[in-house]
Amino acid sequence: MPSRAESDLSIPTRQKAALFRRQGGPVTVEEVPVVQPEELKPNQALVKVIYSGVCHTDLHAMLGDWPLENKLPLIGGHEGAGIVVAIGEHSDTDLKIGDKVGIKWIADCCLKCEMCRKGYEPACSKAQCSGFNVDGSFQQYAVSYTRQLSRIPDGLPLEDAAPILCAGVTVYKALKESGCQAGDTIAIPGAGGGLGHLAIQYANIMGLRVIAIDTGDEKRDLCSKLGAEKWIDFTQVDDIVKALKDATEDGLGPHASIVTSSSGKAYEQAMEYIRPHGTVVAVGLPPSAKVNADVFWTVFLSKKLVGSYVGNRQEAAEALQFAAAGKIKTKYVIQPLSRLPMIYEQMHSGQLAGRVVLDLHAE
Amino acid sequence: MPSRAESDLSIPTRQKAALFRRQGGPVTVEEVPVVQPEELKPNQALVKVIYSGVCHTDLHAMLGDWPLENKLPLIGGHEGAGIVVAIGEHSDTDLKIGDKVGIKWIADCCLKCEMCRKGYEPACSKAQCSGFNVDGSFQQYAVSYTRQLSRIPDGLPLEDAAPILCAGVTVYKALKESGCQAGDTIAIPGAGGGLGHLAIQYANIMGLRVIAIDTGDEKRDLCSKLGAEKWIDFTQVDDIVKALKDATEDGLGPHASIVTSSSGKAYEQAMEYIRPHGTVVAVGLPPSAKVNADVFWTVFLSKKLVGSYVGNRQEAAEALQFAAAGKIKTKYVIQPLSRLPMIYEQMHSGQLAGRVVLDLHAE
Amino acid sequence: MPSRAESDLSIPTRQKAALFRRQGGPVTVEEVPVVQPEELKPNQALVKVIYSGVCHTDLHAMLGDWPLENKLPLIGGHEGAGIVVAIGEHSDTDLKIGDKVGIKWIADCCLKCEMCRKGYEPACSKAQCSGFNVDGSFQQYAVSYTRQLSRIPDGLPLEDAAPILCAGVTVYKALKESGCQAGDTIAIPGAGGGLGHLAIQYANIMGLRVIAIDTGDEKRDLCSKLGAEKWIDFTQVDDIVKALKDATEDGLGPHASIVTSSSGKAYEQAMEYIRPHGTVVAVGLPPSAKVNADVFWTVFLSKKLVGSYVGNRQEAAEALQFAAAGKIKTKYVIQPLSRLPMIYEQMHSGQLAGRVVLDLHAE
Amino acid sequence: MPSRAESDLSIPTRQKAALFRRQGGPVTVEEVPVVQPEELKPNQALVKVIYSGVCHTDLHAMLGDWPLENKLPLIGGHEGAGIVVAIGEHSDTDLKIGDKVGIKWIADCCLKCEMCRKGYEPACSKAQCSGFNVDGSFQQYAVSYTRQLSRIPDGLPLEDAAPILCAGVTVYKALKESGCQAGDTIAIPGAGGGLGHLAIQYANIMGLRVIAIDTGDEKRDLCSKLGAEKWIDFTQVDDIVKALKDATEDGLGPHASIVTSSSGKAYEQAMEYIRPHGTVVAVGLPPSAKVNADVFWTVFLSKKLVGSYVGNRQEAAEALQFAAAGKIKTKYVIQPLSRLPMIYEQMHSGQLAGRVVLDLHAE
Repeated sequence: MPSRAESDLSIPTRQKAALFRRQGGPVTVEEVPVVQPEELKPNQALVKVIYSGVCHTDLHAMLGDWPLENKLPLIGGHEGAGIVVAIGEHSDTDLKIGDKVGIKWIADCCLKCEMCRKGYEPACSKAQCSGFNVDGSFQQYAVSYTRQLSRIPDGLPLEDAAPILCAGVTVYKALKESGCQAGDTIAIPGAGGGLGHLAIQYANIMGLRVIAIDTGDEKRDLCSKLGAEKWIDFTQVDDIVKALKDATEDGLGPHASIVTSSSGKAYEQAMEYIRPHGTVVAVGLPPSAKVNADVFWTVFLSKKLVGSYVGNRQEAAEALQFAAAGKIKTKYVIQPLSRLPMIYEQMHSGQLAGRVVLDLHAE
Repeated sequence: MPSRAESDLSIPTRQKAALFRRQGGPVTVEEVPVVQPEELKPNQALVKVIYSGVCHTDLHAMLGDWPLENKLPLIGGHEGAGIVVAIGEHSDTDLKIGDKVGIKWIADCCLKCEMCRKGYEPACSKAQCSGFNVDGSFQQYAVSYTRQLSRIPDGLPLEDAAPILCAGVTVYKALKESGCQAGDTIAIPGAGGGLGHLAIQYANIMGLRVIAIDTGDEKRDLCSKLGAEKWIDFTQVDDIVKALKDATEDGLGPHASIVTSSSGKAYEQAMEYIRPHGTVVAVGLPPSAKVNADVFWTVFLSKKLVGSYVGNRQEAAEALQFAAAGKIKTKYVIQPLSRLPMIYEQMHSGQLAGRVVLDLHAE
Repeated sequence: MPSRAESDLSIPTRQKAALFRRQGGPVTVEEVPVVQPEELKPNQALVKVIYSGVCHTDLHAMLGDWPLENKLPLIGGHEGAGIVVAIGEHSDTDLKIGDKVGIKWIADCCLKCEMCRKGYEPACSKAQCSGFNVDGSFQQYAVSYTRQLSRIPDGLPLEDAAPILCAGVTVYKALKESGCQAGDTIAIPGAGGGLGHLAIQYANIMGLRVIAIDTGDEKRDLCSKLGAEKWIDFTQVDDIVKALKDATEDGLGPHASIVTSSSGKAYEQAMEYIRPHGTVVAVGLPPSAKVNADVFWTVFLSKKLVGSYVGNRQEAAEALQFAAAGKIKTKYVIQPLSRLPMIYEQMHSGQLAGRVVLDLHAE
Repeated sequence: MPSRAESDLSIPTRQKAALFRRQGGPVTVEEVPVVQPEELKPNQALVKVIYSGVCHTDLHAMLGDWPLENKLPLIGGHEGAGIVVAIGEHSDTDLKIGDKVGIKWIADCCLKCEMCRKGYEPACSKAQCSGFNVDGSFQQYAVSYTRQLSRIPDGLPLEDAAPILCAGVTVYKALKESGCQAGDTIAIPGAGGGLGHLAIQYANIMGLRVIAIDTGDEKRDLCSKLGAEKWIDFTQVDDIVKALKDATEDGLGPHASIVTSSSGKAYEQAMEYIRPHGTVVAVGLPPSAKVNADVFWTVFLSKKLVGSYVGNRQEAAEALQFAAAGKIKTKYVIQPLSRLPMIYEQMHSGQLAGRVVLDLHAE
């Protein structure tokens, strides 16, 4: 049964939004105008955002520490789950008012260029990113683009859909890029974290055997419960490379590793502990990390370093479908939008534990 | 018509060989015993080496500057083309006395482990390398292994086969690993060199468009004659990344690059100039080079760094077949074995111009 | 230098078109109205067709012998090369008036469904076909769809582009589906025909070795000139399967075959003569042919039968690019539109020799 | 704890074996000599067979209804799980006396030819088949070949390993050939049968959604318990094609189907009910079935028919590994060797319900 917020498709003229006017903040929650249906351009839709995940990328956008320029002032957010309440005239879309949709990191792309034609939509030179080049989902009514809105499958609650839209898609795509097949072993550093605990679950669906790397009993128990076969507490081992190799029966190391770290060290270790012909998939977008990969061993052992960046429309649909089938459970706490400024601060100081989903219409 | 050296299948007791007794040399040409047929173990063959290419890797083996230990004293060489003159009893092989065969870098592997079963023969933990773990082709009669000897196709002169056995296979495999399809553009730094000028030719066979990078009019003319579509003299451009991007119609840069450099810089530039979803294939085995890859852009543009290390038996057969079909012409000069000590010195001092093929039986 | 027809972008109210009102014809050339710019819907364009290829599929549409229903009355044609002269308001396109474009068999698709998202555009359930569900290129001014119009690269004359748009794309895609890599051998029955002679050329670009199968000295010479390595005159051999196997060095047969025949027999023979793990790519759309494939041998020798149906936008762009690079030369004769009714008759009676390109503006 | 039969590695001179002297039988259980260690050739091993599965292929070998010739007299059986008790001198193998191994359908191959080098070992022209070209596992001490014996992983009981060696590998490989990825839907006709119930389990490991097709409540319950998502009783539906399409959310049909039927009809239906770009994997080896595939629809909807024939050494190892991990449970009953003649009869008359594993050393 839809909540009251989901049922009410009326469009007010004012709304609450979290925004910042310059890099570094402050982030404030303010009342701002709602874009009205007649103001929408072709292929734009107005989405009543019900829930929105909060992602580390939102912090980068606010700090402005990436080698890319974002819009200012900016309303962040790119894991928005909501309802279509208006569609721009002359739009080429199957979407209808009332449809449940997700606002992903990729807000729009051209669908015409070589990159788009090959399915590399996030690499489209005209790609727009939600909560970066265009205002995102930290507002009650967001303008987005019909081309890239994801349909949220029936039976998947909007609050559960939200974190799939970036975190879920990202790790799902990364696992595909790992080149692993069922039965292969994958190492997941940070397995107990926001991306990691989803990666374990997607990896299991694909028949992969997971070596979870993280620290602490709570994370160990979470990883184990989610289906990780092996656990390595990185604070308890002297030699992480050796520990990973020892964790595989033949001592050759895992077939791949999904690394989301903001430090180059984790990538270099992964390049070392994966087996010959193995793959390290880099997923995070740390502003300044470098992988100092050794050419000799990379060549001699035929290893790969692969960058994986969110996913395209089809991959988003697939990632959501697994969640709708009940196979992916994100661990999160729900918070009202009013708490967002504090959440940014906690992320910045490294004190945010666990994933947050905002309720945009909570009192 | 076979040469006199090719026709005479008798086995002497003494032969000439180039060897060194400790890392760093000196390399000397000496008279040493020939392993006699009854001394061969099962799955060993005695090969009368007629020609052998000389490769930069031979220098690394001599200097001992790799993070791997080699046999000492050592007879180097791993591009040996010759004739089977004896086969160990109880060998499991189709080879017969008189067959023309090639001694590759990979001298032997187990053909039983996971790596071998997957076709990753060079990654077999029991792999032996010619002129490194076992004596190589800088001798007139070399012991090698029936499992990895390559048949040299009819019609391919042995002197032309020799450089294909390492240089040819290496670039051919690297091109396969690039993920390119016909019509894609590939950048080849060092295109006028030993590996590069072969890479141009294999790339052309696959329908790839080649951007050759090197310096000097002679190399420019060679690259152009071999079919490179574009030429960039790296000494004449301020910004190599920009130059490469400008060399493609849409300004996105080449789809891939095959890098054989001994400096990390060339890999880093390649990671930057390839287009989104592009691939840098690392091929060389420089002892200490590092690729300092930027995580952000690797991820954001979904780029790949792929190590490619020689090839397996099938890839060697394929590389030779193209040469036998007359589609690959290696540029080399023939020298007698007696000149090898000087050739090592020239390689070491960076003064060797062009590829050398040794005639093992020249007076 | 553009021809006069190409330079004049004015839009008349009346034009010449070839059409039929019921299945089976007759086909007549008549004067009909030109759709005017203000009548165009979003994402439609008006294309001044300068040249149009004629394809066997046009005959099927006219005869109505397919298990699909087409529009009536119908203007056929789906290899149209021309100039954009008008674009519907609110279109989402990069095309501009004056751009050179191609009208392919796939006139439109949704770009939103699972099939489109995966790049399987011709399998979109909303796909429209030129000269079948919508009027095609046998008219001077055709309405088409901006989504699927192909840009014709600079330097490729429109008359040379026309046959690439269906025949070229079809065989290029089929070769990709064959799973062959450079060095593999491909058999092309009907190699001297409209599709076949293009297949030889695309196969060569990809580094494939071609066994051409057809009959007659003229076709033999054509195939040889285009680069086929072997020739089999099917009227001169008793056992076509044996002949094909004998044409490969190891006697195992070609790695793949591209079959365009309207009789099931050719597919069955191909399933037999390809080597183990080989692929037969079926390309034609004969209304009633059946492949009576033997399950035992298909399984025992791990063979594949693969249906390949035109290509998507990217594949069309690639096929055209090779032609623009001068690597594909179609053999055709140019005829005025007024001859089209007779050409249909000749196709029907099997008397049309060679490919025809219509000049839509010839006097 | 190993059974008494497993612990006793002594080699008697006489043994019990089931054999037939001419096609059509009769099959008799007799006392025959055991090949003694000193009689073994290089790369042969003597395996004490503890358990052997019985497969429909054994019936074909006995009847001689395939278009291939088998050895006569013949001891059948190709799902043998046992212990190495002797190894031929000069063998090139890592196996040791006492190792647990499996005798698969592929008893030997050359490991040298193009097919073997590419990993297509079952297509090797020198491949030998257990219980067909060489005596198989329906005897207490079988001679087999070290090259193709599969290691049985620790922890997997020999009786559970037996049916994996042919049935398990076959469906596992077929699923790989289906081209499906996690989340795709696969139809399995005969899902409640010997191959089918294993296919459900391997499909689940790979994250595939299974539509089980079979009949009867018992099979329905089995399929459901093993993880099939949908069930179609083919005796209860008028139009099997429509039923399959309706069983997918979007009505397009499953992405693939694994067909093991001995009638062509099942293949033709599968070609019809799979979605565009879908794949029918043919697995069985019925002596005379034909797939009468429609060219038009195969091409128009870009469908594939793929023959899949057992697997190579690596695939066998993978299939066994999943069983060792407890993820594959074969349903079978254990019978003594003395019952084998009756089992052949029951197979022939179609009255054998369920899979049989023979205990070769039962009293």
